[in-house]
Amino acid sequence: MDEKELGALTRKTAEMLFGPPKKGKGAFALWKQFDPELAKHLSMFVTGRLYAREVLSQKSRELCACAALAARNLQHELHIHLGAAMNVGATRQEAAEVLFQIAVYAGVPCLVEGMRTLKEVIIERGEWQEPEQQA
Amino acid sequence: MDEKELGALTRKTAEMLFGPPKKGKGAFALWKQFDPELAKHLSMFVTGRLYAREVLSQKSRELCACAALAARNLQHELHIHLGAAMNVGATRQEAAEVLFQIAVYAGVPCLVEGMRTLKEVIIERGEWQEPEQQA
Amino acid sequence: MDEKELGALTRKTAEMLFGPPKKGKGAFALWKQFDPELAKHLSMFVTGRLYAREVLSQKSRELCACAALAARNLQHELHIHLGAAMNVGATRQEAAEVLFQIAVYAGVPCLVEGMRTLKEVIIERGEWQEPEQQA
Amino acid sequence: MDEKELGALTRKTAEMLFGPPKKGKGAFALWKQFDPELAKHLSMFVTGRLYAREVLSQKSRELCACAALAARNLQHELHIHLGAAMNVGATRQEAAEVLFQIAVYAGVPCLVEGMRTLKEVIIERGEWQEPEQQA
Amino acid sequence: MDEKELGALTRKTAEMLFGPPKKGKGAFALWKQFDPELAKHLSMFVTGRLYAREVLSQKSRELCACAALAARNLQHELHIHLGAAMNVGATRQEAAEVLFQIAVYAGVPCLVEGMRTLKEVIIERGEWQEPEQQA
Amino acid sequence: MDEKELGALTRKTAEMLFGPPKKGKGAFALWKQFDPELAKHLSMFVTGRLYAREVLSQKSRELCACAALAARNLQHELHIHLGAAMNVGATRQEAAEVLFQIAVYAGVPCLVEGMRTLKEVIIERGEWQEPEQQA
Repeated sequence: MDEKELGALTRKTAEMLFGPPKKGKGAFALWKQFDPELAKHLSMFVTGRLYAREVLSQKSRELCACAALAARNLQHELHIHLGAAMNVGATRQEAAEVLFQIAVYAGVPCLVEGMRTLKEVIIERGEWQEPEQQA
Repeated sequence: MDEKELGALTRKTAEMLFGPPKKGKGAFALWKQFDPELAKHLSMFVTGRLYAREVLSQKSRELCACAALAARNLQHELHIHLGAAMNVGATRQEAAEVLFQIAVYAGVPCLVEGMRTLKEVIIERGEWQEPEQQA
Repeated sequence: MDEKELGALTRKTAEMLFGPPKKGKGAFALWKQFDPELAKHLSMFVTGRLYAREVLSQKSRELCACAALAARNLQHELHIHLGAAMNVGATRQEAAEVLFQIAVYAGVPCLVEGMRTLKEVIIERGEWQEPEQQA
Repeated sequence: MDEKELGALTRKTAEMLFGPPKKGKGAFALWKQFDPELAKHLSMFVTGRLYAREVLSQKSRELCACAALAARNLQHELHIHLGAAMNVGATRQEAAEVLFQIAVYAGVPCLVEGMRTLKEVIIERGEWQEPEQQA
Repeated sequence: MDEKELGALTRKTAEMLFGPPKKGKGAFALWKQFDPELAKHLSMFVTGRLYAREVLSQKSRELCACAALAARNLQHELHIHLGAAMNVGATRQEAAEVLFQIAVYAGVPCLVEGMRTLKEVIIERGEWQEPEQQA
Repeated sequence: MDEKELGALTRKTAEMLFGPPKKGKGAFALWKQFDPELAKHLSMFVTGRLYAREVLSQKSRELCACAALAARNLQHELHIHLGAAMNVGATRQEAAEVLFQIAVYAGVPCLVEGMRTLKEVIIERGEWQEPEQQA
């Protein structure tokens, strides 16, 4: 795979996970303001070399990402990857289940913070329904 | 579900994940030496109420457990859950993939430590082959 | 203790620590929106089975909670447990002392963040006096 | 308090918590091998200025130290402070209770690791009895 | 060095790193509201005894501070020390380089959060130029 | 820079920092046993793309690496990077100074663990002298 192909794979994978690029937003745009060359190689490694792989299903990969980020209480990145998980097929029940389980591995506060983030993500997607209405 | 049923479900789930009980070994045995009643309720909550659920497949649940534990560099528990993941169907490639991805969320040292643990687990299961022999 | 008694103990303990329930607020309400059954069992385990115990005084238990939460820099939960510590008899001096000591175990930034949270808690309780006025 | 008085208070407090000095062992001896002057000031600040204070009882202070250290999974220091807690009056039940509670704030693995350390401490003190014999 | 000299060195070092004192602001002012005596000794130890040393250049010392704080995702303190690093001669390229490297030791999210903080610091100093204008 | 040049730069940089390659040892050899292709790209990114850069001096870069690793209490990687820091010119006093400072950002236990590791590194290099002999 040459650099051009890797770049294309990186963009395609990023779009599948995170949606259409938002110009000037996001980690890659920020890195580029400090070092365009390193930004490009970091982004191609993470998204093109790693996220694009098919050893795990994309849904399984993203749920693992959410587990790791919730366990470290990194809400900003968790927000992004909860959205990605839902973009590649995870349901809100599956996402919530990963967070409930995090209480065991990283404590209840990480569950609480993570679940607040999940609720925000679902609301932003316009998919939130107050539980009462679900019955 | 009454307490007796919950106890049975806890034991069945523990055996599926961690293999036959090893008398006097493991977290539950340790807790019991300090407080048998609390040990029982903690164990039934984690294994019977949470791990036994079917919102996620057991394989997906255990890979998320490994992601969270590797991200927090908790090798002793990671050892247990890498074994559990393989007991419910994860391959060594899938387990390794989760760990490679942890480099992104928690840094390369967590990948290195986790992969050392994974190699130990595979060796203990008698399933390790030097990569050269695989070709 | 049957489930009804455990529920009553959970509510009584929660009220002693955190004050009267605020409908729709807090961790339990959030969990319930995703899984009412698991929410109930998690809440009963943490508050009814663990916080209700009498091996430690409630004040000592809550100061330890504050120490753990400050050491992990979990300000949202720390806010709740600093309030709980003061609800069961801890003085602002005792709470501050726990935070000063956290500098040794988790670094000065955890002391600074924790003390900002403590000041907020005291202000919200209407008990803050500028130090000059205390002399 | 002049430096001589502070030195005496530091030594007296260290002995109360950690027992008679063990020449060439421990953190202070290690620091001294790299920088005797800074080692002295760090030690006098932590032990003489902070641990010697009486805002909290020594038992309460040490249980909070154990909570913070267990929550960060720092077993070597936890070993030292579990011993100190018991030297100033904490029972094994109280120490275990702090660790059970850490499961809520930092996850079950921190409870497991901490409880293993507690058992070691009790065994080293010659105070361990297999639970069966206690009945 | 007597206490008066140490106080003077502390103030001079603080001013070199963090700029002229801002009355009532910052960690020292906060600590003082809870315990003026302990606040003074903690501040004199950290700034007077440690930061004032000359084993490392001030720039090297502050870049290490930024590395440690970024690795632990402590953005508030990182903001302060990125400013200090620039006050003692670090360029924005050097500060950014430390953060890029943190991706390896603590994961990409710590790089992202840290770089957002760095951009804020540069903007507050009035030194930010959109990269396009730099060409 | 094509892949062959990047490979050569990676090997040269690794040798400067970590010494001659030890066949079958180290992180790269471990990764290769699980995925040779990904191992190569990860190694080339970290060592060839990042460590080889000249924005910071190698000594400054490695001291920052040590600060980050000590702050996260990652002793195995810290051992490697303390050696690397000394290979590119850091003195034992400079390495110790970075660790003393970590007490402020991550707590005293991280200083203690890190300094034990530093002493091991110096002993393995055959450069340890008991402090008494230095006078």
